[in-house]
Amino acid sequence: MTNHNTSPYSHLLLLAAVLALVSVASAFGPTSRLDLQKIMREERNYMQKKVIDISHKYVPDLPAYDSKSGLGNFIKLKTSIKLGDLYNFSVFKLTTHSGTHVDAPGHFNETLFELGYDVVSLHLQTLNGPVLVVDTPRNKNITAEVMRSLNIPRGVKRVLFQTSNTDRRLMYKKEFDSSYSAFTSDGAEYLAQNTDIKLVGVDYLSVAISPKDELLKVHQHLLNSKDIIPVEGLNLDDAVPGVYTIHCLPLRLVHGDGSPTRCILFQ
Amino acid sequence: MTNHNTSPYSHLLLLAAVLALVSVASAFGPTSRLDLQKIMREERNYMQKKVIDISHKYVPDLPAYDSKSGLGNFIKLKTSIKLGDLYNFSVFKLTTHSGTHVDAPGHFNETLFELGYDVVSLHLQTLNGPVLVVDTPRNKNITAEVMRSLNIPRGVKRVLFQTSNTDRRLMYKKEFDSSYSAFTSDGAEYLAQNTDIKLVGVDYLSVAISPKDELLKVHQHLLNSKDIIPVEGLNLDDAVPGVYTIHCLPLRLVHGDGSPTRCILFQ
Repeated sequence: MTNHNTSPYSHLLLLAAVLALVSVASAFGPTSRLDLQKIMREERNYMQKKVIDISHKYVPDLPAYDSKSGLGNFIKLKTSIKLGDLYNFSVFKLTTHSGTHVDAPGHFNETLFELGYDVVSLHLQTLNGPVLVVDTPRNKNITAEVMRSLNIPRGVKRVLFQTSNTDRRLMYKKEFDSSYSAFTSDGAEYLAQNTDIKLVGVDYLSVAISPKDELLKVHQHLLNSKDIIPVEGLNLDDAVPGVYTIHCLPLRLVHGDGSPTRCILFQ
Repeated sequence: MTNHNTSPYSHLLLLAAVLALVSVASAFGPTSRLDLQKIMREERNYMQKKVIDISHKYVPDLPAYDSKSGLGNFIKLKTSIKLGDLYNFSVFKLTTHSGTHVDAPGHFNETLFELGYDVVSLHLQTLNGPVLVVDTPRNKNITAEVMRSLNIPRGVKRVLFQTSNTDRRLMYKKEFDSSYSAFTSDGAEYLAQNTDIKLVGVDYLSVAISPKDELLKVHQHLLNSKDIIPVEGLNLDDAVPGVYTIHCLPLRLVHGDGSPTRCILFQ
């Protein structure tokens, strides 16, 4: 004969089990069990992703546009534990185009600048999302011909162009090097007219080659559209061509014609 | 009688179709068809997500810790189209703890500061991933008791604490208000010892309440662990409690005891 009767413990155990379930379900205030499942699933998902930092560190030897002396000392302690203060607390000074940075539409266009097309106006939907890292023909600028040969399909919104600047490690040389590869005006015009690219990443300090008329035209082709964002000074050392998710988050500097930015890739 | 014979066009049409497929498959240099499918799927995925900016704009009236006068003028044009230059180009000056920002382990600990635990050392895996936004009891600090009542489950790595600071719109008041809600030392100790939280977001300028001994202890409980990151001065106006994905990307300021940061949520 089987004994189904373990009373009085069976009822108490059942009650305890129910109470335990109820407490798991409601214990942590606003968090529901569904939320918890979601967050744990997402956590496992994120732990499997490889993250690549495509931003350069700010150091005194970081090159600066058209300068021999680089960034220089840009940060200093204002209060210091060593000097008896409660905490370390620094001030820093950068240009809106230092190191890895974005350009705002008002950078090359006074009308847009005065209309408020600053770095705050840039769309987060453009700055975050899937991205294509492409190799460009070495020791060539990004001309219309090169753009045609890359044949980037319609629908691709974000592209990082890896050039010989990366091989030449130009972002690690303090002195500005005007022989960098970048967009020519016809390359930029091609991009604006024949592709859906809205985020244009490059691996040296400017999206445009250095002669002044070209510098102006390239920026105008891209920035006057108000929805194309050049991301310059990227660190593409570890970004093998392929598809990633990019997150590029510049500071919300009101009136900023650009801003330093941290950019990362998830694989 | 059905005419199956449309020759000689049928063969030509077939050839054209095959050529078209081949060209789609191989046309755009390094991009494979698989890559293209992946990027388009991901693009549709991102277009459906709502993004919430949880960073405050940098404006002169942004409050600054322990100051009556706020941030002040922090940006100015160095070259200006209006004054005849080719482009607008600005310099800006901020503290490492201006507006929405992160603290580095070296902020309150000289040993860690000298060992290089600066803002560059912060883990991107902590700064990006699933996050819980929680409501805290209004007009209370985040004490051990409050932390216990929130009962945030183990495994949750990122939590943003919405307090009465958000209701009181403290980040929109130029003059620093020391009556803000934040962590007490026992609340911070509880978090460090009894939860898996590594990213701690708060909605005013400090993760700690203002009395000096508490300010010190809270920061020590969190920062001496070297893997807990306080994110301060968040804009939680539009962040309803729940589960999101956070991306928080501070600048790579070498020797920075902290850094301004842009932070966003995806829903």
